[in-house]
Amino acid sequence: MRVVTTGTDLLADALEAQAVTTERVDWRPPVAAPGSDVTADLARVALDPRRTDANARAVAAVLGVTAHLVDVGPASEVLGLERGEFLHAGPPIDWERASGPLRGALMGGAVLEGLVDDPEDAPALFADGSVSLGPCHHRGAVGPMAGVVTPSMWMWVLEDLETGRRTHCTLNEGLGKVLRYGAYGPDVLTRLRWMGDVLGPLLRAAVRRVRDEAGPLDVTGVLTQMLQMGDEAHNRNRAGTLMTLRDLAPALVTAGEPADVADVLRFVGGNDHFFLNLAMPACKLALDAARGIDGSTMVVAMARNGTDFGIQVAGTGDEWFTGPAQVADGLFLGDYGPADANPDIGDSAITETAGIGGFAMATAPAIVRLVGGTVPDALATTRRMHEITLAENPRWSVPVLDFQGTPTGIDVTRVCRTGILPQINTGMAGAVAGVGQVGAGLVTPPAGIFPAALARLAELAPPRP
Amino acid sequence: MRVVTTGTDLLADALEAQAVTTERVDWRPPVAAPGSDVTADLARVALDPRRTDANARAVAAVLGVTAHLVDVGPASEVLGLERGEFLHAGPPIDWERASGPLRGALMGGAVLEGLVDDPEDAPALFADGSVSLGPCHHRGAVGPMAGVVTPSMWMWVLEDLETGRRTHCTLNEGLGKVLRYGAYGPDVLTRLRWMGDVLGPLLRAAVRRVRDEAGPLDVTGVLTQMLQMGDEAHNRNRAGTLMTLRDLAPALVTAGEPADVADVLRFVGGNDHFFLNLAMPACKLALDAARGIDGSTMVVAMARNGTDFGIQVAGTGDEWFTGPAQVADGLFLGDYGPADANPDIGDSAITETAGIGGFAMATAPAIVRLVGGTVPDALATTRRMHEITLAENPRWSVPVLDFQGTPTGIDVTRVCRTGILPQINTGMAGAVAGVGQVGAGLVTPPAGIFPAALARLAELAPPRP
Repeated sequence: MRVVTTGTDLLADALEAQAVTTERVDWRPPVAAPGSDVTADLARVALDPRRTDANARAVAAVLGVTAHLVDVGPASEVLGLERGEFLHAGPPIDWERASGPLRGALMGGAVLEGLVDDPEDAPALFADGSVSLGPCHHRGAVGPMAGVVTPSMWMWVLEDLETGRRTHCTLNEGLGKVLRYGAYGPDVLTRLRWMGDVLGPLLRAAVRRVRDEAGPLDVTGVLTQMLQMGDEAHNRNRAGTLMTLRDLAPALVTAGEPADVADVLRFVGGNDHFFLNLAMPACKLALDAARGIDGSTMVVAMARNGTDFGIQVAGTGDEWFTGPAQVADGLFLGDYGPADANPDIGDSAITETAGIGGFAMATAPAIVRLVGGTVPDALATTRRMHEITLAENPRWSVPVLDFQGTPTGIDVTRVCRTGILPQINTGMAGAVAGVGQVGAGLVTPPAGIFPAALARLAELAPPRP
Repeated sequence: MRVVTTGTDLLADALEAQAVTTERVDWRPPVAAPGSDVTADLARVALDPRRTDANARAVAAVLGVTAHLVDVGPASEVLGLERGEFLHAGPPIDWERASGPLRGALMGGAVLEGLVDDPEDAPALFADGSVSLGPCHHRGAVGPMAGVVTPSMWMWVLEDLETGRRTHCTLNEGLGKVLRYGAYGPDVLTRLRWMGDVLGPLLRAAVRRVRDEAGPLDVTGVLTQMLQMGDEAHNRNRAGTLMTLRDLAPALVTAGEPADVADVLRFVGGNDHFFLNLAMPACKLALDAARGIDGSTMVVAMARNGTDFGIQVAGTGDEWFTGPAQVADGLFLGDYGPADANPDIGDSAITETAGIGGFAMATAPAIVRLVGGTVPDALATTRRMHEITLAENPRWSVPVLDFQGTPTGIDVTRVCRTGILPQINTGMAGAVAGVGQVGAGLVTPPAGIFPAALARLAELAPPRP
């Protein structure tokens, strides 16, 4: 007699006490959510006749996109952002519910735009609606951490040349006391002004020259190389930054005054995270191709505003499914500790949604020195993510896993069935506005948002014949 | 009864036929060499009372060196190379025994120096001794592949700031039809002239400016980072090249005419192997610190001239132990095949001697796409090299092996005792002068040179009391 047991050990223990051979299977119950019947919803979605084809189309759409760097320009120009319009990371939120780092970044943004002189005068503008807030994702953009975009900030412009679709992201400021981590002191504003006055225009000249003379930089292709060079493109972007510098440097040389060019080369070369703000819109550009495919259970965005964690799913339109953002578990800078950290924040989980970042940690084992965990954990994480994804990306392969493609296309039904949550690695912002970065670590979405999305997919499934 | 059997299966088979439990051990006989008694020599060297301490000092000397990039200049200046003096890779050799690629590179060098107009007129100069030949290693230098250095070629200058010791290497030309692979056509010479007229002087200006303003570039530290970025620093040098470009670019901007600066940035950025010529002299600078330590059985150089493979050992002074260079096993470019390949050539095995290159393939699994083999092979190779080395290098660690240090300090006695040969990965030159590169692959030294070195160590051991 052969007995397979799952779940609690009670049955297996009893059988073994009676000398019956048992095989214990590591099984977790499906995630649960108050007010939803996950088992019934899983059955309903499994029977949706559109599902298999819809997911195949969603995967093909994502894998078919190549992101090209076509321009750089201020948000007022490339996004049409008007004076008094600010964007932020994650699902929609108002000032009242905004966390410390998001408030800090908004206050700094108000000074940058000349709406106030003293950042402490800014909260009233957001509280009374004089400045409107909206998610980056609603305007074709993504923003790391607080993700605040104001009209004068310069942005990368990425394009899918086949369709002309575009995505955007600000230029990366570096680490530590920076706006996206909620800092808004004078140094932060001085740096942002230099980025608008010098960095942005010089990058625009170089990007346009490369585009016109050699063809636009293939950001998707740079990501291919990065994954062979120890970057997972969320918290390690060193190789990507270096390759971008290499590809733009010759055109930069003649783009401006030598002293400014040298400053730009030093600024970019001194910030190993510079490429993150190209990786993110490249991932969004790919995932946006799968939006609105009815019947598809694939996640097309994961994003956090520092208070809520939200996902969007291909088959449920632009609806957000949200739950409370968690605090990451990781390593802290200096004397900071878990009590200093804000809950998870930023649109950067778009990298994991596309199959890199935490999903590709096997290719970046050195990252455990930044975000914690062990090298075997890093390898196991990538393997585990294959259990909740629909496909492997042949263009983004992991050499140490024998060139297996990265796990791509998170499937809401697999997450609900296995209880395995997407693994994100992330920077941690200080909970108090103005502090900046306090650490980096590992985090997952709140489990309940997946059954919530599943319930909506079940509602949208055609009635049974 | 428990029987452990080694070597041939005859005994084990017989025992098992009689139902005796045997444990088969994978054992290889020590390497043999005609005219030497390896077992006796191993015993003699093992009893040398100086050995343990001498090897500890040799390891400490190597690990204690940090290589800094302090200058760039023509060989006539930095090596004092006179008109009519040429250097080459590997142990000493004359024109008559020189292989095709070495002959091709010498012929190109003669044209570059203006000694002949037609390369076909050059052989007479080498045959009659009008131009003298000597190993790079004898002049504080190393050269990849043919390793030809002529007085007008510009060289990197690396220094151990504590002792003032220096090593040197030419600037890397790129891949394919290049002088170091034995090509000497007009394109090769045009490129070499540009390297002398533009590249060298601009790099000198940038290197000196960085040295004087920020302190000289720490090449050993760049190697630390490379090993976390998928480079093993022999046949993958992409991250090292990019970091060098990043560190020199701001100083380059103001070093010359913008058009020349842009050309230099394009040339360096377009050649992923550019850093090899910094990795090699950094390795030599470290290993040279262990030369002449009496009683040490550590290898301080492995080098090939395309005909002979030679090693030098800490405890045997400047003596070369040589045997026939082997043809690598690997992957070929275009229509080339094994019959087109020259035997192993170049001083670049100094990287393996220092514990990187083939010894660090675990950290660069993507390299199997260039040199052949499988990802598990790459991981196993690094683990195997720990069996024949004296130490681990804490500054050069391999993330995927849980940050284990690279296997450092090849021990002649361990090679002789285990029969495990050092694993080298290498480019392959065409056997015919003028062809250039035909592939890349894996190769080992001829086994007999290790017992030959061992025999000399045994001779030099003090008489037994």
